[in-house]
Amino acid sequence: MSEFAPFDKYLDKNLDESIQELSELCAQPSVAAQNWGMQETAQMVAEMLIKRGFKAEIMPTGGAPVVIAERAGARRDKTLLFYNHYDVQPAEPLELWESPAFEPTLRDDKLYARGVSDDKGHITSRLFAIDALLAEDGELPCNIKFVIEGEEEIGSVHLPDFIEKNQELLAADACVWEFGAVNFEEVPMQYVGLRGICYVELSVETAEIDVHSGLGGSIFPNAAWRLVWALNSLKDEDEHIRIPGFYDPLVPYTGRDKELLAALPDPADEYKTRYGVKSFLKDLPGGVDLRLAEVFEPTCTVCGLTSGYQGEGSKTVLPARASAKVDFRLVPNQTPPEVLEQLRAHLDAEGFSDIEIKFLGGGPPARTDPDDPFIKTVVETATEIYGTPMQIVPMIGGSGPNYPFVHVLNQPVATAGCGYPGTNAHAPNENMRLDLYVKHAKHVVRILKEFSAN
Amino acid sequence: MSEFAPFDKYLDKNLDESIQELSELCAQPSVAAQNWGMQETAQMVAEMLIKRGFKAEIMPTGGAPVVIAERAGARRDKTLLFYNHYDVQPAEPLELWESPAFEPTLRDDKLYARGVSDDKGHITSRLFAIDALLAEDGELPCNIKFVIEGEEEIGSVHLPDFIEKNQELLAADACVWEFGAVNFEEVPMQYVGLRGICYVELSVETAEIDVHSGLGGSIFPNAAWRLVWALNSLKDEDEHIRIPGFYDPLVPYTGRDKELLAALPDPADEYKTRYGVKSFLKDLPGGVDLRLAEVFEPTCTVCGLTSGYQGEGSKTVLPARASAKVDFRLVPNQTPPEVLEQLRAHLDAEGFSDIEIKFLGGGPPARTDPDDPFIKTVVETATEIYGTPMQIVPMIGGSGPNYPFVHVLNQPVATAGCGYPGTNAHAPNENMRLDLYVKHAKHVVRILKEFSAN
Repeated sequence: MSEFAPFDKYLDKNLDESIQELSELCAQPSVAAQNWGMQETAQMVAEMLIKRGFKAEIMPTGGAPVVIAERAGARRDKTLLFYNHYDVQPAEPLELWESPAFEPTLRDDKLYARGVSDDKGHITSRLFAIDALLAEDGELPCNIKFVIEGEEEIGSVHLPDFIEKNQELLAADACVWEFGAVNFEEVPMQYVGLRGICYVELSVETAEIDVHSGLGGSIFPNAAWRLVWALNSLKDEDEHIRIPGFYDPLVPYTGRDKELLAALPDPADEYKTRYGVKSFLKDLPGGVDLRLAEVFEPTCTVCGLTSGYQGEGSKTVLPARASAKVDFRLVPNQTPPEVLEQLRAHLDAEGFSDIEIKFLGGGPPARTDPDDPFIKTVVETATEIYGTPMQIVPMIGGSGPNYPFVHVLNQPVATAGCGYPGTNAHAPNENMRLDLYVKHAKHVVRILKEFSAN
Repeated sequence: MSEFAPFDKYLDKNLDESIQELSELCAQPSVAAQNWGMQETAQMVAEMLIKRGFKAEIMPTGGAPVVIAERAGARRDKTLLFYNHYDVQPAEPLELWESPAFEPTLRDDKLYARGVSDDKGHITSRLFAIDALLAEDGELPCNIKFVIEGEEEIGSVHLPDFIEKNQELLAADACVWEFGAVNFEEVPMQYVGLRGICYVELSVETAEIDVHSGLGGSIFPNAAWRLVWALNSLKDEDEHIRIPGFYDPLVPYTGRDKELLAALPDPADEYKTRYGVKSFLKDLPGGVDLRLAEVFEPTCTVCGLTSGYQGEGSKTVLPARASAKVDFRLVPNQTPPEVLEQLRAHLDAEGFSDIEIKFLGGGPPARTDPDDPFIKTVVETATEIYGTPMQIVPMIGGSGPNYPFVHVLNQPVATAGCGYPGTNAHAPNENMRLDLYVKHAKHVVRILKEFSAN
């Protein structure tokens, strides 16, 4: 029998209570983009930590507050930091939810609610693991800290600064990241790197009011056309980003990176089925080449276009204003300030000084060494629960504020969590599989025990 | 004393009754885009004609019905056709109206209501002129026909077909158009040509659902990028439209056209003030060159752009769908079917067969010879009323269904009406100046008398 049997038993037995706690947390909206319920949710989270004997504090940031918490454990010389966030994405479009976004609902062994997976379920499942440790051992195996921010879904605007200023409070030997998931084959994934992001709005105004297109079409400047031409100057149809200097800071991927990516299942068919795409860019068939392109290439993505008339049928208007949301995903060693500077210089050089750039958030990319000992601990302790060690992914396409953890706090950052491919994070009908919720709690128990044993 | 004094006296004396009739017509909503009150309004208009001894008929079109009417006059060998429309633009945004859109209200010698100028005031002022003729002469000087459609504000969808099929019913020697106006110097304008229009929606779908931009940015096709590149292929930054064959059918403007445009006041300053534009395309300073470009060049105008996330702040999404509204203004001898064919061939040739084209409406351009004798009649009969003959504009930038009148019914088409620059057609607080209403009725009396005398 596993040494973890008592903890596992506790977790299997007390699931309902933890789900009850998670439901209460999800019933409290905390939409950062709408500044809705941030203070209330921070308070709830702090109270949940205090209930477990943590010293918790709600700290101002200039935006939504950060909750930090700390409890000492048997080993005073080892500290693990959990990074989470209590804010959620907007729930819109509301009409696509099968049950209301802020009324957590159990269906088919899944709990449905906005934020149930991203990231409130990760908060409560970790607290659930702590409950098991305290119930069975009467103490924690090591010091545990939490840093739970309220702005992750709007780009962690104040977090890097907060970390910079509170390095001692957040000092730890290692960090467990806010998310983690099994893939479509139920294999838990260890993501050790995140691309950076530089998200901007490009906008242009060519007149004070819209003009009738019959009047202005051949003599008035048109904001929509200015935007189209400016965007076109950013990227060729072959996906080459035309901004001078953009590719200069790139560090090539290593042989080990390629080896790790090659070990992953080919995602091509799943992507085609899930998203209904017929083929990939540059005729990539799939396999390791698709994987390498997916995560080790920087991007320039148009996320949104807005101008003029967008309703049914026709309206003959020449738009005075146009704007685009554009997201650059960055790979080591690109940085948002450098990209912003290059973008401005490029637009000016191409004759688009009329295009305004508004920086909407971002951060640099960061990676933890896939062979770091802490990564090994997290990867191997998964085996007993998932029937397989975690599969290491050297880099993923997404972004998050891991840079200050890796490069300011100098912590190895490991992912572990209760997500799965159908979790619908950021989408209607976000849900959490109860079986994965318990598995993650069991994994956290093992991570803490093993981390404290070395 | 003018031979027209009795008619003028009648019109000055009976204005209140005509405004009462106009108010009743405006109180009856007839919003084609919302299919609101079309049948009822057609009925009202038919009854107004029958009251004047016209034989009127409400004819089906597949959409809103057309009212046609006819009354014989002293000269049986001469027929004048009035083209009008009883439908109006939607009144939204309602909150910007100072008095309710469908409650006609007199303020400062103006009648305010949706459709009061465009085009119900034109219907009743012409009936008012007919009242004067019948009261003083006991008969009409020539045959008069009306064709009053109910779909002008939604692109006269069924009118060309209706005209094609009812050529005998609509046969006439000349046509007076639905609108006309004085300019900002109170000079009545004679517009003898309208550009054509070909309005399309371009759309593309690259996946079934939006993809997270962190996942898809470097490997998934992006609908917004496809649209940007496709649009960019349509027109260069120097305004040259790149669609092969697009300019081939163009007939150059004549020396007479240029002479007529040169006689008009320079619109440059007014455009800059009204619309807040700083300069015009191709560095056109103003004057006749601006006028020539404004009306004798075909256009490709992006009227709207829609894709992905358009709210506040950032959302990291790779859009599955993107679309643009694009309006081509056509000059003789371009036609919508030819432009559609060229557009499809161009997009295919440029690698954009994934872009769908949806035709949302349009019609070819058409012109009446500025020196046509009927134009001369209309222009010169204005002098006694406005203190100046009409100023002939050989072509305007806007569009309307004049093609089947000019090229199927073979009628010269003259404009005359009661509009002015502050009339707010299509906008909140649409209004009709009572002085211009009476002037137009007086002008119509003179047009009919003079037309019948020759």
